[in-house]
Amino acid sequence: MAEAVVLLDLSISPFGSRVRIALAEKGIEYEYKEEELKDKSILNKSSLLLQMNPVHKKIPVLIHNGKPICESLIIVQYIDEVWNDKSPLLPSDPYERAQAMFWADFVDKKIFDCGKKIWMNKGEEQEPGKKELIECLKLLEGELGEKPYFGGDNLGFVDVALLPLHSWFYAYETCGNFSIEAECPKLVAWAKRCMEKESVPNSLPNQNLVYDYVLQVRKRTGVE
Amino acid sequence: MAEAVVLLDLSISPFGSRVRIALAEKGIEYEYKEEELKDKSILNKSSLLLQMNPVHKKIPVLIHNGKPICESLIIVQYIDEVWNDKSPLLPSDPYERAQAMFWADFVDKKIFDCGKKIWMNKGEEQEPGKKELIECLKLLEGELGEKPYFGGDNLGFVDVALLPLHSWFYAYETCGNFSIEAECPKLVAWAKRCMEKESVPNSLPNQNLVYDYVLQVRKRTGVE
Repeated sequence: MAEAVVLLDLSISPFGSRVRIALAEKGIEYEYKEEELKDKSILNKSSLLLQMNPVHKKIPVLIHNGKPICESLIIVQYIDEVWNDKSPLLPSDPYERAQAMFWADFVDKKIFDCGKKIWMNKGEEQEPGKKELIECLKLLEGELGEKPYFGGDNLGFVDVALLPLHSWFYAYETCGNFSIEAECPKLVAWAKRCMEKESVPNSLPNQNLVYDYVLQVRKRTGVE
Repeated sequence: MAEAVVLLDLSISPFGSRVRIALAEKGIEYEYKEEELKDKSILNKSSLLLQMNPVHKKIPVLIHNGKPICESLIIVQYIDEVWNDKSPLLPSDPYERAQAMFWADFVDKKIFDCGKKIWMNKGEEQEPGKKELIECLKLLEGELGEKPYFGGDNLGFVDVALLPLHSWFYAYETCGNFSIEAECPKLVAWAKRCMEKESVPNSLPNQNLVYDYVLQVRKRTGVE
């Protein structure tokens, strides 16, 4: 059967980027549909997006043979299960799977929101977000340990979950006037290592585009 | 090999209750360790809990042969994968699995927090929480459809995720002075059906204990 794979996405989205990396790792061809950004900062939700994700009304949505799958980590797990002949992302051992899911869930619950506490504030109000972000990244450095990737010798579920946030580090650092690399050199070295993988660079947004989006939101909401 | 299974938990926790239902469905014997509630409302975290879940410092934690698994939905999935000879909770088809994970994740992101908007407020301030809770429960009624359980003919992942919140409905209704059954009769009928399952009643907290806890928190935080 010919596979029809469509991705509803927004290029700067760290959540959409996860799906793009997973699809690239598996070598899956797909049709990419970019949602529109009104005034460079507000998602203009297409009727297809509203139809395919009526509950959350959010990108990314993977449409596989006409059926939608929503929520980025659930999509990545789905991709890993359906296209299971190449580049496994989740370990097969139940305990190791649970650990990978734990850390991907940790990334989901913490990193983007910590970042937002930085770029949606200014001056002293940014300090709690910066402190919390560094604490979380240090925990992730501890989990990485001496491995080249979170997945071991190859990209795994946690790498796919975390890596797109690295494209947002430049915006965090520029808005917050601090250096993540100074605090978490091992994590930044990990991200650079990942960027050498064929599947990664084209799946991630340019950090300048992310920063431009962040600036537009800051202006629109009166932060600056 | 003899299985050593320990659960660090708090009886009123809807998240811990999920793990208890899953363990009961699978017929797994385990040692139950209740964390202490100081002043009936503040978790007095044991050194074992801090050691086993140093990242989130939260119950429930399942300790299987000395190794900890954290986060309730990840624990339930782990239980389903390790004890896979009985009462499957997640479907084997990847698309159906993704759908079950989507709705369990929806419960996780919405229901407890909507409830909290009710019981941590009073009067008019409760209205947005009540409205949002009913909207979410109606979406879940739609997903249930005419099936006896979310899992189909048997309890599944979404049933296990949602059911413990039903023990909190009495607290929501009493604090918010409204009836969930009047708005969502099918969902309440589903919960009653589940309560007839052998695995369920003893895995859930008494609704009066939950209400008592909620009242203690309301008093301590100055809501009443």
